[in-house]
Amino acid sequence: MTCTIEVLCIGNELLIGKILNTNAQWLARYVSSLGGNVKRVNTIGDDLNEISSALLDSLSRKPTFIITTGGLGPTFDDKTLEAIANSLNKPIVLNEEALSMVKEKYHQYEAIISKKLELTPARLKMASLPEGSKPLQNPVGTAPGVLLKYDSSQIIALPGVPKEMEAIFEISLAPMIKAAVGNVFTYEKSLNVFDIIESELAPLIDKTMHDNPYVYIKSHPKAAEPIPLIELHLTATSELEEKAQENVEKAAKQISQLILQHAGKIESD
Amino acid sequence: MTCTIEVLCIGNELLIGKILNTNAQWLARYVSSLGGNVKRVNTIGDDLNEISSALLDSLSRKPTFIITTGGLGPTFDDKTLEAIANSLNKPIVLNEEALSMVKEKYHQYEAIISKKLELTPARLKMASLPEGSKPLQNPVGTAPGVLLKYDSSQIIALPGVPKEMEAIFEISLAPMIKAAVGNVFTYEKSLNVFDIIESELAPLIDKTMHDNPYVYIKSHPKAAEPIPLIELHLTATSELEEKAQENVEKAAKQISQLILQHAGKIESD
Repeated sequence: MTCTIEVLCIGNELLIGKILNTNAQWLARYVSSLGGNVKRVNTIGDDLNEISSALLDSLSRKPTFIITTGGLGPTFDDKTLEAIANSLNKPIVLNEEALSMVKEKYHQYEAIISKKLELTPARLKMASLPEGSKPLQNPVGTAPGVLLKYDSSQIIALPGVPKEMEAIFEISLAPMIKAAVGNVFTYEKSLNVFDIIESELAPLIDKTMHDNPYVYIKSHPKAAEPIPLIELHLTATSELEEKAQENVEKAAKQISQLILQHAGKIESD
Repeated sequence: MTCTIEVLCIGNELLIGKILNTNAQWLARYVSSLGGNVKRVNTIGDDLNEISSALLDSLSRKPTFIITTGGLGPTFDDKTLEAIANSLNKPIVLNEEALSMVKEKYHQYEAIISKKLELTPARLKMASLPEGSKPLQNPVGTAPGVLLKYDSSQIIALPGVPKEMEAIFEISLAPMIKAAVGNVFTYEKSLNVFDIIESELAPLIDKTMHDNPYVYIKSHPKAAEPIPLIELHLTATSELEEKAQENVEKAAKQISQLILQHAGKIESD
């Protein structure tokens, strides 16, 4: 079964280039390692209409999971949950489970800073979720993650702060993706190819992929022509771990031979 | 006049997290510094249908520029130009200007490696562009950039290799964006706020933004509660450079006073 994932990264700071989107890479790598198939990563600003429009677009493609990052905090520009609620025509309601998570955090903070922290509207906002949501424990920060089923998709809203996003993903989301993927193994291998220009490599890759239909080969130019260094990245997935490995090794052997015949140089990792 | 930009980053390597998308940040930062408004950054795989669908979505929002990165090289999975042609119902044709750019590159390479390089189909592919395109000089690599007008938008296809993408952007695209933006200045300022929790800061930001409608304030939590460090990033744009600065400084002064009244600590950069 194919488990498809779309990621929506929310935050103006990404659109002005203030922040490098390391969350997207972290999620893409982790999801792929679990056998999930990341189809898109979209970045949008802190704008209700933009978030809603991107979310509805994603939902129309019916991915297994839609993961949002950012916009869960207490400030006015944290708009993710309001946008999800608007998109799905659901009201925002105070969620008792989320409220007790937020309260518990503030009790911990009060103990540390010896100061009473009232449940202000800004704090209650973090416990106010689209109706039908389930809050996900945030072991690092205050705002809980949020899980909401819609049609055949599960929407998961995570905070934008990387440590919080990662912690909630590992605890709550990784097991869900693993279950959705089932037993699928991915095997990958990289070859560094020297002294052959990408345009000469192109037909050799075509031939190898044609002969090895279960292996995907992608070339990554690492140094510009005319003294080229190209990384070839081979991947295969299979329900049998040995089969994925066997397929990749067979293709790696074939393309290595084709390249050596072509008088390029090759190095395996 | 608002100059809006959407970025489409194309490449499976981004969707499996093999590569960190530094191109997106570089473009977002550069475009913003020119006064352009990046509305979306979308990442998709090397798939004709996916690229076409994302491109048509972008076109429907009528941005001033759509910048694609990746998929211009000679290998089978470089599909950007084919996808653009399909989306706009244009044939791919050998472009004489692009061909002479590609030929010139290979002449240079031949001189360096003392070997004849034929114009194979893989190489001709880099000079085969959607009808009506204008090739953009690539001073670093082989594949030219591509410019194509469609309705009120300009589509610009850039290579995925960062040095090539950056060089073409600087030479050809930066002047176009600057011209489209006109005289607009952006002023920004950051304040580091200690010892106040984001949820207590939220109403102070609301008040300051309400009183300073031309200033945008975004809070970036840098360290998790309960010992918080929050960066406040203030920006304003104006046709008058002094006006943008004046607006930001006035808002910075107001929010600093509100925070100090609240017994937080503040540091200006």
